[in-house]
Amino acid sequence: MNQERYIAVIGDGSHAPHAEQTAKKLGQMLADAGFTLVSGGLKGVMSAASEGARERGGHTVGLLPGLDREDANEFIEVPVVTGLGHMRNFLVVANADLVIAVEGGWGTLSELALAKKIGKTVIAIGRWSSIDGVLPADDPAMAVDLAKKCFAEEY
Amino acid sequence: MNQERYIAVIGDGSHAPHAEQTAKKLGQMLADAGFTLVSGGLKGVMSAASEGARERGGHTVGLLPGLDREDANEFIEVPVVTGLGHMRNFLVVANADLVIAVEGGWGTLSELALAKKIGKTVIAIGRWSSIDGVLPADDPAMAVDLAKKCFAEEY
Amino acid sequence: MNQERYIAVIGDGSHAPHAEQTAKKLGQMLADAGFTLVSGGLKGVMSAASEGARERGGHTVGLLPGLDREDANEFIEVPVVTGLGHMRNFLVVANADLVIAVEGGWGTLSELALAKKIGKTVIAIGRWSSIDGVLPADDPAMAVDLAKKCFAEEY
Amino acid sequence: MNQERYIAVIGDGSHAPHAEQTAKKLGQMLADAGFTLVSGGLKGVMSAASEGARERGGHTVGLLPGLDREDANEFIEVPVVTGLGHMRNFLVVANADLVIAVEGGWGTLSELALAKKIGKTVIAIGRWSSIDGVLPADDPAMAVDLAKKCFAEEY
Repeated sequence: MNQERYIAVIGDGSHAPHAEQTAKKLGQMLADAGFTLVSGGLKGVMSAASEGARERGGHTVGLLPGLDREDANEFIEVPVVTGLGHMRNFLVVANADLVIAVEGGWGTLSELALAKKIGKTVIAIGRWSSIDGVLPADDPAMAVDLAKKCFAEEY
Repeated sequence: MNQERYIAVIGDGSHAPHAEQTAKKLGQMLADAGFTLVSGGLKGVMSAASEGARERGGHTVGLLPGLDREDANEFIEVPVVTGLGHMRNFLVVANADLVIAVEGGWGTLSELALAKKIGKTVIAIGRWSSIDGVLPADDPAMAVDLAKKCFAEEY
Repeated sequence: MNQERYIAVIGDGSHAPHAEQTAKKLGQMLADAGFTLVSGGLKGVMSAASEGARERGGHTVGLLPGLDREDANEFIEVPVVTGLGHMRNFLVVANADLVIAVEGGWGTLSELALAKKIGKTVIAIGRWSSIDGVLPADDPAMAVDLAKKCFAEEY
Repeated sequence: MNQERYIAVIGDGSHAPHAEQTAKKLGQMLADAGFTLVSGGLKGVMSAASEGARERGGHTVGLLPGLDREDANEFIEVPVVTGLGHMRNFLVVANADLVIAVEGGWGTLSELALAKKIGKTVIAIGRWSSIDGVLPADDPAMAVDLAKKCFAEEY
């Protein structure tokens, strides 16, 4: 996976049908575009995005807050335990070249803010999309288009 | 210090005269009220709040991102090195019973969000005060009043 | 990789021809046996073991001390940045089901001790092999045999 | 406390009468010599050393593995929560100018090794005192003498 682009999908770990549907679609489209998916490795949006990615043959890395690899959802190809609790939020975005938020609560906001702090591009669908400095996207297709444009501009 | 209440003051580490004036006043009032001040231990708002606290005989703890104790500003009584970089933002709020943001950028937003994630009360003066779930305060006096009320309600 | 066994190979990051030769052979044999190789992702023993593993089609994960994925040696399939400095030593062993030390200095000893602390089996070739509680191995073949036996005994 | 020397006392967290007696004496002598005591903040050797230090008016800082300040023993003046689990072992020694081990198991060995890795002087009483590169001490008095000599040599 070494030369691929990593994109983190961040969002709620609790069950939220609408956000999960969006995340799954996003995971599919990211895999189709050749990106490796990084996430927190747990349930909800993290699991849905990883499921989408795996359906299309994409790679998935999950950075878990605890020390038990079994905490990873079944769609995580490479589970990494951290034992860092909420500090692992930083590792999720630090391991990504770009971050996409799908709805989400305080944990997601912390990831978004840490990503901006270390200079990563952040795209948000839904809840946190109106924060100054974050690129808003209406849906997964627009988010993936924005991501591609960001990487293209780097060259 | 063991039985005292710890309050984290979070905000920009770069020079910002207005925010620093507010932070210094806040540090003074927190010390007068008997609170121990926790911060990231560096410059800007962290230094100004600690200066205010020390002027009034308050205690100050600084959780530094690096491994060099000398990075602490001169008003930090107990410097603690962490080597955690941006992950130390979590330790700043995890070591506080309540968090007060004074203006601030992405780093401050990450601290605020992590504090809310682990169930701490967050009071904000300025920039981040309009986020749902954060208690807005117009000035240091109002922030300290709110903090006292929060602790009083716990009993 | 989810259902595979992970084995951490720990050792010096600086150039040491003899230890590297041992590590490369060990990496080859671990890959032949179907284990995924976890390491600190840098040079020396970490690089040699990963090179051996990749030659035989094995998987390699590298947990880097810094925040730059480019720090990984060229044989790391999945580089993970941690920004934890020396604290990432813990993550190397926490992500493994069993740990094999090849010579090594203080950093290796810290990994070995942390691994024992959290109940992992530790096999050592060379320098640290005489510490009580560590399983000594004369060479890579003996180390891999011991590893297989440990896993077999679990069932 | 800012200008004082910090010395970490490391050792077992479980009850061990002989080691605790040594640790208490060591804590007293370190306080008499004007050093601030850093420890992991829990029971056993950490508590005994802190008790000794407080009896003589010394300062004590405790770096806790969890997120609950109440985990600190009653002799810790400044409890700092880390949420880092075993990774907080690194912070104990990183916050010290010199490290003294009193007996101890794998956790203590990991601290000792990490301390050496980052260039700190390590003095050991008992179990780990025969490791090459560690300064052996027969008792607290000899350990404190060695510590004083190390600091004196720096000037």
